[in-house]
Amino acid sequence: MNSFGRIFRVNVFGESHGESVGVNIDGVPAGIPLKQEDFLPDLERRKAGAKGTTPRKEDDLPFLKSGVFNDHTTGAPITILFENNNTRSADYAKLREFPRPGHADFVATQKYGGFEDYRGGGHFSGRLTLNLVAAGVIAKKILGSGIQVKAELKEVGGYPDPEQGLEAAIAAKDSVGGVVECTVDGLPIGLGEPFFDSIESNIAHAVFAIPAIKGIEFGAGFAAAKMKGLEHNDAIIDTSGKTATNNAGGVVGGISNGNQLVFRIAVKPTSSTPKVQETLNIASGQVEQFSVKGRHDLCIALRVPVVLEAVTAMVLADFMLLEMRAPRVFK
Amino acid sequence: MNSFGRIFRVNVFGESHGESVGVNIDGVPAGIPLKQEDFLPDLERRKAGAKGTTPRKEDDLPFLKSGVFNDHTTGAPITILFENNNTRSADYAKLREFPRPGHADFVATQKYGGFEDYRGGGHFSGRLTLNLVAAGVIAKKILGSGIQVKAELKEVGGYPDPEQGLEAAIAAKDSVGGVVECTVDGLPIGLGEPFFDSIESNIAHAVFAIPAIKGIEFGAGFAAAKMKGLEHNDAIIDTSGKTATNNAGGVVGGISNGNQLVFRIAVKPTSSTPKVQETLNIASGQVEQFSVKGRHDLCIALRVPVVLEAVTAMVLADFMLLEMRAPRVFK
Amino acid sequence: MNSFGRIFRVNVFGESHGESVGVNIDGVPAGIPLKQEDFLPDLERRKAGAKGTTPRKEDDLPFLKSGVFNDHTTGAPITILFENNNTRSADYAKLREFPRPGHADFVATQKYGGFEDYRGGGHFSGRLTLNLVAAGVIAKKILGSGIQVKAELKEVGGYPDPEQGLEAAIAAKDSVGGVVECTVDGLPIGLGEPFFDSIESNIAHAVFAIPAIKGIEFGAGFAAAKMKGLEHNDAIIDTSGKTATNNAGGVVGGISNGNQLVFRIAVKPTSSTPKVQETLNIASGQVEQFSVKGRHDLCIALRVPVVLEAVTAMVLADFMLLEMRAPRVFK
Amino acid sequence: MNSFGRIFRVNVFGESHGESVGVNIDGVPAGIPLKQEDFLPDLERRKAGAKGTTPRKEDDLPFLKSGVFNDHTTGAPITILFENNNTRSADYAKLREFPRPGHADFVATQKYGGFEDYRGGGHFSGRLTLNLVAAGVIAKKILGSGIQVKAELKEVGGYPDPEQGLEAAIAAKDSVGGVVECTVDGLPIGLGEPFFDSIESNIAHAVFAIPAIKGIEFGAGFAAAKMKGLEHNDAIIDTSGKTATNNAGGVVGGISNGNQLVFRIAVKPTSSTPKVQETLNIASGQVEQFSVKGRHDLCIALRVPVVLEAVTAMVLADFMLLEMRAPRVFK
Repeated sequence: MNSFGRIFRVNVFGESHGESVGVNIDGVPAGIPLKQEDFLPDLERRKAGAKGTTPRKEDDLPFLKSGVFNDHTTGAPITILFENNNTRSADYAKLREFPRPGHADFVATQKYGGFEDYRGGGHFSGRLTLNLVAAGVIAKKILGSGIQVKAELKEVGGYPDPEQGLEAAIAAKDSVGGVVECTVDGLPIGLGEPFFDSIESNIAHAVFAIPAIKGIEFGAGFAAAKMKGLEHNDAIIDTSGKTATNNAGGVVGGISNGNQLVFRIAVKPTSSTPKVQETLNIASGQVEQFSVKGRHDLCIALRVPVVLEAVTAMVLADFMLLEMRAPRVFK
Repeated sequence: MNSFGRIFRVNVFGESHGESVGVNIDGVPAGIPLKQEDFLPDLERRKAGAKGTTPRKEDDLPFLKSGVFNDHTTGAPITILFENNNTRSADYAKLREFPRPGHADFVATQKYGGFEDYRGGGHFSGRLTLNLVAAGVIAKKILGSGIQVKAELKEVGGYPDPEQGLEAAIAAKDSVGGVVECTVDGLPIGLGEPFFDSIESNIAHAVFAIPAIKGIEFGAGFAAAKMKGLEHNDAIIDTSGKTATNNAGGVVGGISNGNQLVFRIAVKPTSSTPKVQETLNIASGQVEQFSVKGRHDLCIALRVPVVLEAVTAMVLADFMLLEMRAPRVFK
Repeated sequence: MNSFGRIFRVNVFGESHGESVGVNIDGVPAGIPLKQEDFLPDLERRKAGAKGTTPRKEDDLPFLKSGVFNDHTTGAPITILFENNNTRSADYAKLREFPRPGHADFVATQKYGGFEDYRGGGHFSGRLTLNLVAAGVIAKKILGSGIQVKAELKEVGGYPDPEQGLEAAIAAKDSVGGVVECTVDGLPIGLGEPFFDSIESNIAHAVFAIPAIKGIEFGAGFAAAKMKGLEHNDAIIDTSGKTATNNAGGVVGGISNGNQLVFRIAVKPTSSTPKVQETLNIASGQVEQFSVKGRHDLCIALRVPVVLEAVTAMVLADFMLLEMRAPRVFK
Repeated sequence: MNSFGRIFRVNVFGESHGESVGVNIDGVPAGIPLKQEDFLPDLERRKAGAKGTTPRKEDDLPFLKSGVFNDHTTGAPITILFENNNTRSADYAKLREFPRPGHADFVATQKYGGFEDYRGGGHFSGRLTLNLVAAGVIAKKILGSGIQVKAELKEVGGYPDPEQGLEAAIAAKDSVGGVVECTVDGLPIGLGEPFFDSIESNIAHAVFAIPAIKGIEFGAGFAAAKMKGLEHNDAIIDTSGKTATNNAGGVVGGISNGNQLVFRIAVKPTSSTPKVQETLNIASGQVEQFSVKGRHDLCIALRVPVVLEAVTAMVLADFMLLEMRAPRVFK
């Protein structure tokens, strides 16, 4: 489904080279100040144009089509539309012959019988992350200033210094992957719903909707698999639940424990590498040499942090609204 | 919520030391042969008793309370109950004073105001994975013999040989973590639903419901973050979608691509280590020495493979019921 | 699906002559006092045995299998089981030949390929309303004493005096229908969620899950279709929202308006009439004479009021948990 | 929530005098021919302008913003936007003082704290039924030509001849209610999902989302409550499930039985009567005389049939997709 969330419910739509991409958000409380300008800083952070990102530039202006009145949310569903202006679909004609390795081209045709909008990845395009960023702006407002969601690029192509990793990729004329870390400070204790809606379950669910993500780990993560119990356990040191270490990454039993929420995600190298590849030509039925045209990011991980913040904020806003609305203890 | 799945919908319930644990499954088609014995092999695999697992033994007999008639499913919801017989709740009285590090004790009390059933972890207990295994048995029947889900322990305490890792833990008198890998052969192309119900999203969602899981990665996973594009891309080599390599782990654009589905999960060390720990005594408000009593697994990862197979089968059965009977293309 | 509700989520299961019928309820807050005896008064009201009801009697004891500890709800899902003891399935063997008019026999076989449990109506049996009554008992506790849900039989076989209508049916040796009215006092203003979760939508949805219901009307209902605007409009007479008349039945724009909620439902005559009927013999392919054996209610409407209260309470508890703890306005 | 449906999932948004109203539909299979013109006939039927309807006229052009490519559905979510051009919001300023009887004005302010877009009823406006009609056009395509959904006005102001009823209302200078009947021919046997998703439950749920609906009855409906069993029972007369009578209205046990589906709904008189009314002036706190300005329908029931067809088609398309996708018998 193209929707996510129980209370703060996000519906995304659109295609890379179609009329528009957009998002419809149900469950936003009334009375939150909201106007077009509020979206611009995070949309700007997501934008292309920096070294290692695609030269395609869109205005990316969010048009508020419903749910806002007198610069405040009304409690009715909010619809935000982004027009697609700067499209060069001709670049993509060739892809019908060569389903791009690492892209959804092949599976989309199999699944949708060739009726899918294949231009620029269509509905599978990274352009749909605009919708996530827009939803994230509203989600962050629901979280308020007391809850700080912050994502940072921690590694590019294996280099702890992203700049260095990017230089190496440029030198190699190849695309490259990366690791992004997200931390959340100020979360109350008690978010997360057994059995299936743990904090980890819902964040992982939303995170894997971001294109190019191939792994997620919380706290010590995969390193925990190599640890012993005494080393891994986080001793509680005061009645607020503060722990001496944070190997759990702020979640125990699927529920926030009042410490910093920490997780990391693995971003694969952009599939659209400038390198010549060998892959199947569907028309000829032969493996042939192929190179991707069009404008692409060399390191998509560079643009992921603001998107990761957005989906994290979406999940947490949903938990906050759920918890505020239906607290777990009866009075 | 305690339910998961759109068509094959699993609802779990129960507490470790309460009356019972159980599972209710809606959306199972009619006409599937099903009787009590069908559950026993997978339940046996989950059982304690081997070296490194808890000495607590239950009969773990699944009682079919609804939805089965003449040894076939009827199309009505199936309810399976496991009685709790072999409980020693007295062991847990002390835990009210010392919320166990790494357990849900502290957050549960915060969230449920002290009304939670705290005995043996209550609703947070690993005993609820019985329900997952039972649901998995039915899910595997829906997948049929053509789709093979197989999970294996790949690492214990950092040792690629689990036996060696376990010996090291026994020698250290401490609990230990591990890595489990799951592979699925025979999946059709086209499972997975954009935007939010990718294969990865739904599997990760279900996997993080298993207690003690702290990470998941698909295909090359975190290693992909260190790769270049040409190295990572899986060239398509024939019209069935077969690829030369499988760094994607069988999923592109969130959709199965006809290659083997591969993912790995990180299991943290059992929180109930035999070691003495320092942690907060809630009653005294002081950090004190504390050691966990009760019967516990030294390496919970040993018992995870059958559970991991079960949740994977659950997710895939849901996708199969949702998508494959009638393809996404209108006729 | 066999589940209903967003927060207070009710899952029913079971068959009339199978092992058991039961209900699993997720989303119940922790800390509500609850024990077996609390269910007995409403279960007693539902029971057979009075004039015009089936002579089949069951103990109908609700067994609490999960979610309750120290006589309070824990916040984990509550499972309640009713054993089936007093079944006489032999009575139903004949029904395989004669799908009973007005029953689900024919459609169930078509839908479930003959795998359905046909004994006593199986999963379609009125016995599953036990589950609703049990869920209703908990829902009423959530509503609290300030919100009073009350259903009453208003008409039997066209007679405003139910007794008279029942006597007429007994004299005619035929089953008979009825009308039940439900009122709710004390509802706050503001329950109901545009666009699709109006009070009327959700109550009607739940009400039509009760077997034998064929119509529902709110306030003036079908009489409103014959009215003029001035006559129908309920003038607001004070700032609490009180209206001079209540043709709207307490709901405007799908939202509770602070006046009494009023609706009525039409209950069809029990399909299992004692009369000889002409209908198809599936085996012979001929229309033949047929009479229903087994033990049945002459007027099922007699037993509907407590069930109607239960589903109404379920819907309202869900709205209360969803909306009222934190209002729809952001602070 | 502003969404409805499990597979064919409809999300409505917009306000009467805001930027736009629109609808987002997820779960539409790929490959259905679809262009703007396909919507026009049903949108035309909904339009105002005939005797007894509002003089407000909009172009009501549906803009396809996503999910359509080369004049076919793509399998991605479809978004349809209607711009609001012909608004006269000044008419509504006065309503802030006088919450209109029968409208959502009062409850909306209570629920949304005054942040709601009150102009022209805002999100509660009948203008949102445009969205339903648009969704219905697609739903009808999914049903195909073999399933015919048809709604007809059966009664206005108590007159079986709608023309006569309308004349009486015009003469009385008051608004008036009506009854609309919907029939569906060609439905397969077996649609409807126990326990909570009966045909009646889901149709009633969707129908009560249409503004001004106060009752619904299936088949004999409320008349059934006055019948005896022998009279009401529909004898099955052949192996296709055809019945001699159709008091059940084509549904038994909540499941379609292969006969014509028939139900009727009660439409209240338009709340915006031209008559002078007495109601509360919020500002003064006094009951005062008040008359509604603006452009309104005298008999909203006149415009309901196409909307009723649309929601019925929505519900049935959802059942059809669900059944096609997850047939109830395992093979």
